[in-house]
Amino acid sequence: MSAQVPPLSRRLDGLRSSAIRDLLKLTARADIISLAGGLPDAELMPRDRIAVAAEAALSDRSRLQYTESPGWGPLREVLAARESARLGRTVPVDEVFVTHGSQQALSLLAEVLLDPGALVIVEDPAYVGALQVFRSAGARILAVPLDSEGMRIDVLRELLASGERPAFVHTVSNFHNPGGVTMSPQRRRELAELADSHGFWVIEDDPYGELWFDRPSPDPVAAHSPNVIRLSSASKILAPTLRAGWMTAPVRVCRAVELLKQGADLCGSALTQQITADLLADTAWLGTHIDTVRTAYGERAHALVDAVRTRFGDRVTATDAAGGMFVWVDFTDGTDTQALLPQALDAGVAYVPGSAFAVSTDYSHSMRLCFTTSDAGTLREAVDRLAKAHGQV
Amino acid sequence: MSAQVPPLSRRLDGLRSSAIRDLLKLTARADIISLAGGLPDAELMPRDRIAVAAEAALSDRSRLQYTESPGWGPLREVLAARESARLGRTVPVDEVFVTHGSQQALSLLAEVLLDPGALVIVEDPAYVGALQVFRSAGARILAVPLDSEGMRIDVLRELLASGERPAFVHTVSNFHNPGGVTMSPQRRRELAELADSHGFWVIEDDPYGELWFDRPSPDPVAAHSPNVIRLSSASKILAPTLRAGWMTAPVRVCRAVELLKQGADLCGSALTQQITADLLADTAWLGTHIDTVRTAYGERAHALVDAVRTRFGDRVTATDAAGGMFVWVDFTDGTDTQALLPQALDAGVAYVPGSAFAVSTDYSHSMRLCFTTSDAGTLREAVDRLAKAHGQV
Repeated sequence: MSAQVPPLSRRLDGLRSSAIRDLLKLTARADIISLAGGLPDAELMPRDRIAVAAEAALSDRSRLQYTESPGWGPLREVLAARESARLGRTVPVDEVFVTHGSQQALSLLAEVLLDPGALVIVEDPAYVGALQVFRSAGARILAVPLDSEGMRIDVLRELLASGERPAFVHTVSNFHNPGGVTMSPQRRRELAELADSHGFWVIEDDPYGELWFDRPSPDPVAAHSPNVIRLSSASKILAPTLRAGWMTAPVRVCRAVELLKQGADLCGSALTQQITADLLADTAWLGTHIDTVRTAYGERAHALVDAVRTRFGDRVTATDAAGGMFVWVDFTDGTDTQALLPQALDAGVAYVPGSAFAVSTDYSHSMRLCFTTSDAGTLREAVDRLAKAHGQV
Repeated sequence: MSAQVPPLSRRLDGLRSSAIRDLLKLTARADIISLAGGLPDAELMPRDRIAVAAEAALSDRSRLQYTESPGWGPLREVLAARESARLGRTVPVDEVFVTHGSQQALSLLAEVLLDPGALVIVEDPAYVGALQVFRSAGARILAVPLDSEGMRIDVLRELLASGERPAFVHTVSNFHNPGGVTMSPQRRRELAELADSHGFWVIEDDPYGELWFDRPSPDPVAAHSPNVIRLSSASKILAPTLRAGWMTAPVRVCRAVELLKQGADLCGSALTQQITADLLADTAWLGTHIDTVRTAYGERAHALVDAVRTRFGDRVTATDAAGGMFVWVDFTDGTDTQALLPQALDAGVAYVPGSAFAVSTDYSHSMRLCFTTSDAGTLREAVDRLAKAHGQV
């Protein structure tokens, strides 16, 4: 007799792999210059410094054992000192929680903050990794568009005035993925004031804030309100392999996340957490290292934006790429970026169509370009190929 | 104006930190010999071999980058080869999925396999890390008692005959935590047959199977049915810091888990996954290493069981400790192990009362003792202290 096949949960029915992941499989051909990815450049990651830290970590056998669910103590201390400097107040260690990348913080926070059917407000276009988690948690999603100063707080204010009551508002405040823009200081204060007066959470998702090219990022939204939960990560400034993200949040949020982290995966790795602590605490080295990354990314970003503006002129608007990893391009000539993609791939260049990040708007004339993993010459060649493909549409 | 404080999700109301974790905080005093913990011995972990593997892993910059959600390819290949040998059939790589410890597999499987209100059948006493996840997922829980041959399949059969239809049955088949027993070969076949004929999943949670002292563990339940999802981990044979667990399951289960892993934390660490692959592939070294752990734990287990039987005689029954990390002791003289605990702590010894693992039965006369982190002499001293405390009750 053959075995009866058991079912899977019905909740999987609506879940699909991200369109971007599927696209990345298509664009992995050697002859394609991919501006579609979203990875930091492995060539700029501090391999040698990590190796030194790994050796030091392994000299202590306690680094081989399970560690505490909120993270290895000394890493939390280093993070508390960094966050204190960033927020302009003393952040105690028990307001710092280490997660397996920022993505785990998003996932645990969705459980901690959302009741079934709760409203989540995101930016449009949105970070798809967050959107996927909030959708999977059964949240009702509303989107507020971005402009050159970040989230349109006037639109958020209208939603609130109309009676909408979000459990939280999610924002990528610095060098938005995919939108490329940074929320202005004035809007940060306004968002914080709304969170205070209406009693909702803000999740300030900030993996890119230290990757500024010309001037430091504005004070975090979290500097202006106790209702802001701030996320960041070692992935973009050190290396994704450390899987070290962190959250700064009120103690009761950290305690609730701890309960769920125990069930989710017990704890992180004391080895990778000590490596992370070692590198973050070595402030002289870290400053030089991040400067190197900033300089390299800044050159690439400027090369890409210049090439796009030179080649496409007033048929596009492109963000300034003042930091981070992405440029957002809107075609003003009606170009459908989803329709353009096959020609672009034929011409040897890949990007992500705006529709992959769309929530309410369709962004069919937009695209996201990543500048981190190609040198300036390669980026110019990529734009040449894109222009060639565009000329054929 | 002070900020309005936003709420947390109502789903947190029923969640509490595990009683064991709270107990461990109480028993961390230097003058207490703790048999309450559940940690492998860091002194036996292969620090030097891990350091060599870490250095090798860091020679390749791609180990610094994000890795694939189902795990770093070469680790999955090593695991597929190991599982093929264990299961007596060729296990393809796409039936192997790497998780952040086995705990993450339990957590993602709860989402993949359970609809709201679904029935989960566990063993009584139960592994509390699993119980916490299943409860948090909103499952209805029924428990089947253990005896010296493991899960009472006759009781499971009665539940099925009465119309109960589990989404899955969870079992720790080898050297049960906390029960100390191993499921007999006959019951493994019967459980597999029931899974096939009734169309339910079995989660065979097997972190301890390689830690046998006298003879190898029986063939896995998964050798007898395609409906068995098998979990194991590097934590008990190598080191918890690697945070490497793995699942062997049908491809459609692995794909569903992959979708959820993307939202949960994107991916694991290519660094710790390569270290794990390196050590598991070095079969000559691994054999010697695991033999060392087996020998040490075996000596400790026998010392503990002998001391318990000598000191308490027919006032207790204790499991044989044929492998794993735990001995389960039932008092036959009516001793209430929760009531005994304060005297035991005063006498300088800690254990976990059976009630901490209870599902349907209360196990008020039982206790779990962990023998991994003390030498034989210390274990005998611990039992002396326990006898002293017991004499005072």
